[in-house]
Amino acid sequence: MEVISKKAGESLIMMTELVLPNDTNVFGNLMGGRLMYWMDIAAALAAQKHANAPVVTASVDNISFEAPILLGNAVYIEAKVSRAFTTSMEVHLHVWGEDLKKQHKYKSNEAYYTFVALNNAGAPSPVPQIIPVSEDELKLYDGAMRRRQLRLVLGGKMKPDDALELKALFSNGTKTT
Amino acid sequence: MEVISKKAGESLIMMTELVLPNDTNVFGNLMGGRLMYWMDIAAALAAQKHANAPVVTASVDNISFEAPILLGNAVYIEAKVSRAFTTSMEVHLHVWGEDLKKQHKYKSNEAYYTFVALNNAGAPSPVPQIIPVSEDELKLYDGAMRRRQLRLVLGGKMKPDDALELKALFSNGTKTT
Amino acid sequence: MEVISKKAGESLIMMTELVLPNDTNVFGNLMGGRLMYWMDIAAALAAQKHANAPVVTASVDNISFEAPILLGNAVYIEAKVSRAFTTSMEVHLHVWGEDLKKQHKYKSNEAYYTFVALNNAGAPSPVPQIIPVSEDELKLYDGAMRRRQLRLVLGGKMKPDDALELKALFSNGTKTT
Amino acid sequence: MEVISKKAGESLIMMTELVLPNDTNVFGNLMGGRLMYWMDIAAALAAQKHANAPVVTASVDNISFEAPILLGNAVYIEAKVSRAFTTSMEVHLHVWGEDLKKQHKYKSNEAYYTFVALNNAGAPSPVPQIIPVSEDELKLYDGAMRRRQLRLVLGGKMKPDDALELKALFSNGTKTT
Amino acid sequence: MEVISKKAGESLIMMTELVLPNDTNVFGNLMGGRLMYWMDIAAALAAQKHANAPVVTASVDNISFEAPILLGNAVYIEAKVSRAFTTSMEVHLHVWGEDLKKQHKYKSNEAYYTFVALNNAGAPSPVPQIIPVSEDELKLYDGAMRRRQLRLVLGGKMKPDDALELKALFSNGTKTT
Amino acid sequence: MEVISKKAGESLIMMTELVLPNDTNVFGNLMGGRLMYWMDIAAALAAQKHANAPVVTASVDNISFEAPILLGNAVYIEAKVSRAFTTSMEVHLHVWGEDLKKQHKYKSNEAYYTFVALNNAGAPSPVPQIIPVSEDELKLYDGAMRRRQLRLVLGGKMKPDDALELKALFSNGTKTT
Repeated sequence: MEVISKKAGESLIMMTELVLPNDTNVFGNLMGGRLMYWMDIAAALAAQKHANAPVVTASVDNISFEAPILLGNAVYIEAKVSRAFTTSMEVHLHVWGEDLKKQHKYKSNEAYYTFVALNNAGAPSPVPQIIPVSEDELKLYDGAMRRRQLRLVLGGKMKPDDALELKALFSNGTKTT
Repeated sequence: MEVISKKAGESLIMMTELVLPNDTNVFGNLMGGRLMYWMDIAAALAAQKHANAPVVTASVDNISFEAPILLGNAVYIEAKVSRAFTTSMEVHLHVWGEDLKKQHKYKSNEAYYTFVALNNAGAPSPVPQIIPVSEDELKLYDGAMRRRQLRLVLGGKMKPDDALELKALFSNGTKTT
Repeated sequence: MEVISKKAGESLIMMTELVLPNDTNVFGNLMGGRLMYWMDIAAALAAQKHANAPVVTASVDNISFEAPILLGNAVYIEAKVSRAFTTSMEVHLHVWGEDLKKQHKYKSNEAYYTFVALNNAGAPSPVPQIIPVSEDELKLYDGAMRRRQLRLVLGGKMKPDDALELKALFSNGTKTT
Repeated sequence: MEVISKKAGESLIMMTELVLPNDTNVFGNLMGGRLMYWMDIAAALAAQKHANAPVVTASVDNISFEAPILLGNAVYIEAKVSRAFTTSMEVHLHVWGEDLKKQHKYKSNEAYYTFVALNNAGAPSPVPQIIPVSEDELKLYDGAMRRRQLRLVLGGKMKPDDALELKALFSNGTKTT
Repeated sequence: MEVISKKAGESLIMMTELVLPNDTNVFGNLMGGRLMYWMDIAAALAAQKHANAPVVTASVDNISFEAPILLGNAVYIEAKVSRAFTTSMEVHLHVWGEDLKKQHKYKSNEAYYTFVALNNAGAPSPVPQIIPVSEDELKLYDGAMRRRQLRLVLGGKMKPDDALELKALFSNGTKTT
Repeated sequence: MEVISKKAGESLIMMTELVLPNDTNVFGNLMGGRLMYWMDIAAALAAQKHANAPVVTASVDNISFEAPILLGNAVYIEAKVSRAFTTSMEVHLHVWGEDLKKQHKYKSNEAYYTFVALNNAGAPSPVPQIIPVSEDELKLYDGAMRRRQLRLVLGGKMKPDDALELKALFSNGTKTT
């Protein structure tokens, strides 16, 4: 493939869903699992848009749900590739709920899903690199290396001692994500 | 409530699902998002069994998908509360796929979901403590404190310097999960 | 309600869906009915965003499906209120498919759904008027009166002779939608 | 194919559905989009029964929803091919709801969906002509030409001036559908 | 309630479904469980139509699936109350598949579901008796007593010795259903 | 295939489901049809685990639903092959509901589904025999012959007079299932 890098913004996917009865728990709140399902589809589409190839979910980083999203509310999911590695891509997600009656929009969570691009034979396939443009994209791009080390350490594929970027976290206390 | 602690094993939930066409991506593999949806339900049931109260998903730890689960295969999910804190519970999940024709059973992933128990008014409600019995349960119980610190650090609710158990991870290189 | 008019752009809803196996016919194409279901939800959310009230679908104008959307492709739906009447709103929809592998994006259809806002008692409730800003919004705003007459004539609620804007269509041959 | 015409009644499809929680909006009424999805399947089956070939939805005419259908009510959909053209068929639909407890059956809407028959290669394929028998079938058959002109005009494929049957509508005020 | 009996035919429900990918097993055949789900809804609607009250499924008689129904085929389900007892009703179901392309319609199975009508408090509530009219309805009405005895014997609620109609079955070998 | 018999316990499938809004009737109880759908999948997985081959549902024995399962409750389904014949297998199912808040677990029903194993060509294929080990497994194994005769008699494939095991039922009044 000739194109070796693409802008982060080109991969943006904006998804909107309506919370229906079957998506909710006994409190009438959106279940975390249903939201993670929607997030997976939004993120996979962003990764495919960047890679122009089918992708599979490789991992999901820590997700913390800040506010419940209610039955009948809208769910907004924005997904954008934050950084590409050789055959994998980290996708950043930002999720809000909105009570359309009260005009109240609130943050649910931010998350990172990682995908691997596959060729027709189902083997990992190289992807274009990411060019971050906005300040937010640059910040996400920079943090991606540290999050990758955390993934490798948590997955038992890297020794904590070798996770240099991650180790720095514990000496200067900068924000982690 | 009089009961102040319950055995980990009492909360065990065993879920089995069949991978149907709508659960799969273009490669005929189970989509990560669908699996996380099933895991959320299995884990929520385990947490409710322990707390005897409704629960909501508070957070999900890093999940790394090791092997794809194929269309027509069985999915086995085992969920058990690993440790309870004041009003929250960490649930450990173990997920396998099985090709029933070839009698081939394979690991997909291990994961940790955290739930908060709620009372009728929707406010956090105290839960019984966990008594680990087997060696595995003890190990999960012990690691829970370190994973909780990681969640707090990643969620911006604890300074890395105060995460003592977690910091130790970067000086002695023990397995993280 | 004090606000008596809102900009058309404030009601914009952008929805993205992935075509899964159960959404397709025997040719592996998205079924028209599934697409109309997604369009109804996107349009209802746009109408609710404008009205800040729950809405019900009152009618759907002629829809012509131009190109089939394939299994595994993305579906993009943009919905925006084009004009508000007393208690009803016309929502304009624009739908595309995209083959993410080939980077091929194609138009599926344009459509108009009409919704009525309801108050808590379930009775029709006044909605803010629309302020069109862009050239496209102005064109949609202007055409809305003619489409409304067509709806009334087709629904047997207006005599063709009284549909002045619509009648003009048959004397000067301007584009209809 | 030797058979060059079939009776309209041979294509009749009678579908009954139950309105379940996930089919409803915040008022507990069946969502318009879900109903259009069911109507698409009923109409596609009627068209396939006539054509003995797979079909795809080409267009949907104006639909006006007259009465809300409530949660727990039955939905009755009757679909029958009203007229066949070269490779396309117009299907007439009649939809009722019924509150089974109160024995109250009420009309929801009448609609027209148009389908194109496809051969194995996915190209449009000739279909048998329709023989209308009952008075209602004759009326639907006659009106089909005018509705077809409206579709072509609205789709920008026919000049209003050439839609002779449709133009007559605006000089004598006969019922339109 | 004044009406103490209603004709069997008044309860007739005709349901048509399309077999979609998610309804099928690895052979592309409709799964038995999905069919039993549709049959339950059709039969429950027939019972509600007769009782004019909500109903719950009490039991299902032996079902034997004669021919597989294929992906893309139509499924026709006819449900009609065959006999009413004090608060329960037996519903007879007849199920066919149809390959619309080949114009091949084939029988899948016949079955009997039993429902109990409930009042607003959720307690069993008396239902009108059934008046069988056609020869088929009379046959189904007559056989209902024997099937009821079998249900009671199989459910452990009647001693085989007391099932007089059923016992006769084993001395004269008449057809059982 | 060399293995000619396998232990009953090897086929055990434990399924857990959560009752969601769309699974319920107007009383908020799990619909019988949804439960039979889940039971079909659990039983089919048990049969596939025993046969190491794909299977299709051949028949379902009488099912009597003892207690309603409520919205938000857990459903536990245990499925195990009770006896194998030449190419078919009888699977025994045991179903409970649980109100996790009240710690109240209750029986819903016991049932028997029969499956046929198929080879790649879709033709019936021999399956291993069952070795019952526990007392319960022995009892289920012994009763399977009588239930099989009842299936054949009810299906019109065996004369009541030839169903020797079944006839005995009506002379000594032993429990039937």
